[in-house]
Amino acid sequence: MIRKTSARPREIRGVKKIMEKAEPTVYFAPLGGLEEVGRNMMFFEYQNEIVIIDAGLQFPEEETPGIDYIIPNIAYLEPKKQNIQGLILTHAHYDHIGALPHLLQKLGNPPIYATSITKAIVLKRQDDFPNSPKLNIQVVKNGDKVQLSNFFEAQFFGVPHTIPETAGVVLKTPIGNIVHFADFRIDYNEEDRPQGLEEFEKIGKMGIHTLMIDSTNAEEAGHSLSEKVVEKNLEAIFRKAEGRIIVATFASLLTRIAEIIKIAEKIGRKVALSGFTMKTNVQIAQNLGYIKAKEGTLVALEEIHKFRDDKLLILSTGAQGEPNASLMRIVNGEHRQIKIKPSDVVVLSSSVIPGNERSVQVVKDNLSRQGAIVYHSNLIDIHASGHAPKDDLQLVMKLIKPKFIVPVHGYYFMRAANAQSAREVGIPKENSILMDNGQVAALTKSGFRVTEREVPAYYVMVDGLGVGDVEEVVLRDRRALSAEGMVVIIVTVDRDKGGRLLKSPDIISRGFIYLKENQEILEGIRKRLHGLISRLPNYQPLEPDYLKNLIRDQIGQFLYNKTKRRPMILPVVIEI
Amino acid sequence: MIRKTSARPREIRGVKKIMEKAEPTVYFAPLGGLEEVGRNMMFFEYQNEIVIIDAGLQFPEEETPGIDYIIPNIAYLEPKKQNIQGLILTHAHYDHIGALPHLLQKLGNPPIYATSITKAIVLKRQDDFPNSPKLNIQVVKNGDKVQLSNFFEAQFFGVPHTIPETAGVVLKTPIGNIVHFADFRIDYNEEDRPQGLEEFEKIGKMGIHTLMIDSTNAEEAGHSLSEKVVEKNLEAIFRKAEGRIIVATFASLLTRIAEIIKIAEKIGRKVALSGFTMKTNVQIAQNLGYIKAKEGTLVALEEIHKFRDDKLLILSTGAQGEPNASLMRIVNGEHRQIKIKPSDVVVLSSSVIPGNERSVQVVKDNLSRQGAIVYHSNLIDIHASGHAPKDDLQLVMKLIKPKFIVPVHGYYFMRAANAQSAREVGIPKENSILMDNGQVAALTKSGFRVTEREVPAYYVMVDGLGVGDVEEVVLRDRRALSAEGMVVIIVTVDRDKGGRLLKSPDIISRGFIYLKENQEILEGIRKRLHGLISRLPNYQPLEPDYLKNLIRDQIGQFLYNKTKRRPMILPVVIEI
Repeated sequence: MIRKTSARPREIRGVKKIMEKAEPTVYFAPLGGLEEVGRNMMFFEYQNEIVIIDAGLQFPEEETPGIDYIIPNIAYLEPKKQNIQGLILTHAHYDHIGALPHLLQKLGNPPIYATSITKAIVLKRQDDFPNSPKLNIQVVKNGDKVQLSNFFEAQFFGVPHTIPETAGVVLKTPIGNIVHFADFRIDYNEEDRPQGLEEFEKIGKMGIHTLMIDSTNAEEAGHSLSEKVVEKNLEAIFRKAEGRIIVATFASLLTRIAEIIKIAEKIGRKVALSGFTMKTNVQIAQNLGYIKAKEGTLVALEEIHKFRDDKLLILSTGAQGEPNASLMRIVNGEHRQIKIKPSDVVVLSSSVIPGNERSVQVVKDNLSRQGAIVYHSNLIDIHASGHAPKDDLQLVMKLIKPKFIVPVHGYYFMRAANAQSAREVGIPKENSILMDNGQVAALTKSGFRVTEREVPAYYVMVDGLGVGDVEEVVLRDRRALSAEGMVVIIVTVDRDKGGRLLKSPDIISRGFIYLKENQEILEGIRKRLHGLISRLPNYQPLEPDYLKNLIRDQIGQFLYNKTKRRPMILPVVIEI
Repeated sequence: MIRKTSARPREIRGVKKIMEKAEPTVYFAPLGGLEEVGRNMMFFEYQNEIVIIDAGLQFPEEETPGIDYIIPNIAYLEPKKQNIQGLILTHAHYDHIGALPHLLQKLGNPPIYATSITKAIVLKRQDDFPNSPKLNIQVVKNGDKVQLSNFFEAQFFGVPHTIPETAGVVLKTPIGNIVHFADFRIDYNEEDRPQGLEEFEKIGKMGIHTLMIDSTNAEEAGHSLSEKVVEKNLEAIFRKAEGRIIVATFASLLTRIAEIIKIAEKIGRKVALSGFTMKTNVQIAQNLGYIKAKEGTLVALEEIHKFRDDKLLILSTGAQGEPNASLMRIVNGEHRQIKIKPSDVVVLSSSVIPGNERSVQVVKDNLSRQGAIVYHSNLIDIHASGHAPKDDLQLVMKLIKPKFIVPVHGYYFMRAANAQSAREVGIPKENSILMDNGQVAALTKSGFRVTEREVPAYYVMVDGLGVGDVEEVVLRDRRALSAEGMVVIIVTVDRDKGGRLLKSPDIISRGFIYLKENQEILEGIRKRLHGLISRLPNYQPLEPDYLKNLIRDQIGQFLYNKTKRRPMILPVVIEI
């Protein structure tokens, strides 16, 4: 699948382009990930060739109630799908691969380039989408060079992150080398010395036009916490435990999971896995040799009763308090094999994603109430982030020495903090590029210019089976309903008699106040409806829209005066 | 108002009590604050005397959409209001005083004991409740001893917090001394030495039965960050600023605000106040001498154009991204006097309350996009919490040496962490009491026993003008509506003809999907309704409830199959 051509038809095809623009220009646009954390996707276009990096999803926010997740908008790419030469995946986290099942067919099922663990996790996810086409995934290793098309070549390099085989990529283009550092951290040894920088130094020496760099932790001071420290602290907690150990973490933190299994072997505990993704991810990591559990270390959940409590460690999903994850089932007493006992030691080895504080608190409270000893990272370092903070970001900038830098992954302020860091290491302000999703940049050999052009980048929401059918108007209604509720008012009128009420109005409310217990308000509404309808002119036919507006305004005002709330008023006029 | 009696009628009145219980027993119950952060209120009861500490509100949570706030439940106290001898307020933060306007009348408007700044802020808030009775507030100073009733005496002592005159209280009761430490931190000097511990030591020497101690930061390691460090960092940032300085913080952090005004004077900047509560709180603190601004330091917002940018500092509300606060109006270009300029330095001097991360991010993004230089506490310490972390909590426990300890203020896990800290300083496990709101404890000279008795402590919600009229059923509906929306289905049938449809069914949906653009689903609903109604037996009268259930089940199932969503289905049967 590595495509090569001998002739580069640039001169022939490019006539029109050359007329417009004397020098070769690569166009670049982020489709997501630059105004949020998640939904990472970007593409490069040169003449009739397009290369994409990542296709991630974004988890819902407070402003998108009820939504499953948000995916990148590919309205620009879809009609150009025949031009897509390749889709590079940097690593197997859902904010980088999660949108694939929804997008691949629309993108013409292009060749995908990914490391083996990324491939395995992508294929596993496809099981949930049985009608998808067979994917066309080319496995790459870090160090590989791949000619993607006439004009684009990719060179992969390893970056430390929380999942093995995370790949940075040097994209060689007609205007120069563009480096995307994926999600990364820097490994430190126990003496706090950074490890494995030679590779990055080499890339710097290639001569780099633009560096795309992770901004997730750009607001944090200092350098990455050594995973060695985390391991040491975990081992100390494990050794002290007198009963079972239950470690809850993300199933995607495979590097941590591999370490925990190693420590368990060292201290003589069997490991049981709880939670579907925990099982499948560990299976994948075992198949690829990233988890090298000895024969007999891993035991089935159904077997744990055969082992003494102080010989057991359970790895569980649900460290964020997710409603259906294994830890929540354990906490709620709904887990078939695991009930909390007072001697249990529960370790939450993950950070709390903003918005999940309350759910995590509930989990900790309930574990603690059931007598478990709970460890979380406030009091002791038992989690290290996968994203480089300020000092490490600057370290990479200094090694790569790019001409231009594009902070990616994160809200504007995080990216601005990253740009500020770039200035501090000598990258001129005008060469730190802060773009928004959908903006198009024109890259020439010596320049990087954000153009006036834009491609669509608004939210595409996935909700149940629907993709893109929940729009802003629906979300606005959900938000309004959740704050003030609604009142449906149904008046049945006689069409022929200018709107005489045929029966007492039907009033239904939900999420407003409990009307059954507020007879006074209910009577107030009825009285006003009767008054309002009796005053309708009876010398002309009823205009239902006029009556609806009247109801909406007058009943809305009445309810506001009575309650200082503005429920959604839905008037229905039934004409008989 | 300091009531004194010469005779203690305990022996006479207590006959029945003595029969039940040979030794004097004080009953204690928390009404809020022990399963959340906020809504702090507790009471002590001895024979026919009741003393209350604090009456705070709790801010709404994800599970209480649309609610203004939650107040303590006083169902137990209301019928006993003639027994209430006093209400002690520890300090003027809303989680300790915010429920007062809703509760005082129901509590019989009892005498309130508060320091002068607490009194001033309580009275200011009463302005919003013009129909309230005149409050009966007795000003106390730290150090004062007050005989509250026959059996209860209060001795006040100062604790460092983020608002001046925060008062801890030693409650002298027939069974011994109970200390409530309010919200507190420990002051450290620049050499990191704790300050002002002598007072606490003295209290310890009085002999303490029970210590009630703040758990808000019990999960945090280490000791309080010195406010001196915060001041130094703020001054350094201020001195570097070339344009205006805008500092956003809580208007209730009066200690910080006083410091900032001092620094402004030191570096020669005028101070303007933006935001209603900022103005009123600073006014109160000035009146009481806690803010000693020199003549001419404070300038009106309307005057700021008369001063050079580098001679101005603006103190603003809105550091949490609150929608109507001053900072948000500035950011949105809706502030009358202040528009962001690229030279502005904006300092957010507060922590982010969980749940507000996204709003704060939006504020920072927008300030940064408008060119302002934004400082937040991630990269540099420009905020110190008002709540003691673990080391300081243990310091206080060691000085007070209580027999029993009741961790208050916080979720179970926070309080359990505090109890764990107590064990580490030698308080036996069985003497660290973890109670829930509404539980009643019986305190005797030598004992502290949580009884089987409970008093009501369920949420009382304030929403608009309503207090307590939003109940769990309404919130459940709001949550359901916000996740999946709803579909109202109105069928108009002929009562006499066994339910023949008189017109095409009316279908209204909100927050589900945009039905206008989903004609197929709309048609599917109609078709199923027609089918379902045509199959109703016509040899018996229509049963509307039966038909409604049929619609709810069958249309619900149809929509789930089509969309994998479960909107609320509201069937209405109009019989003519």
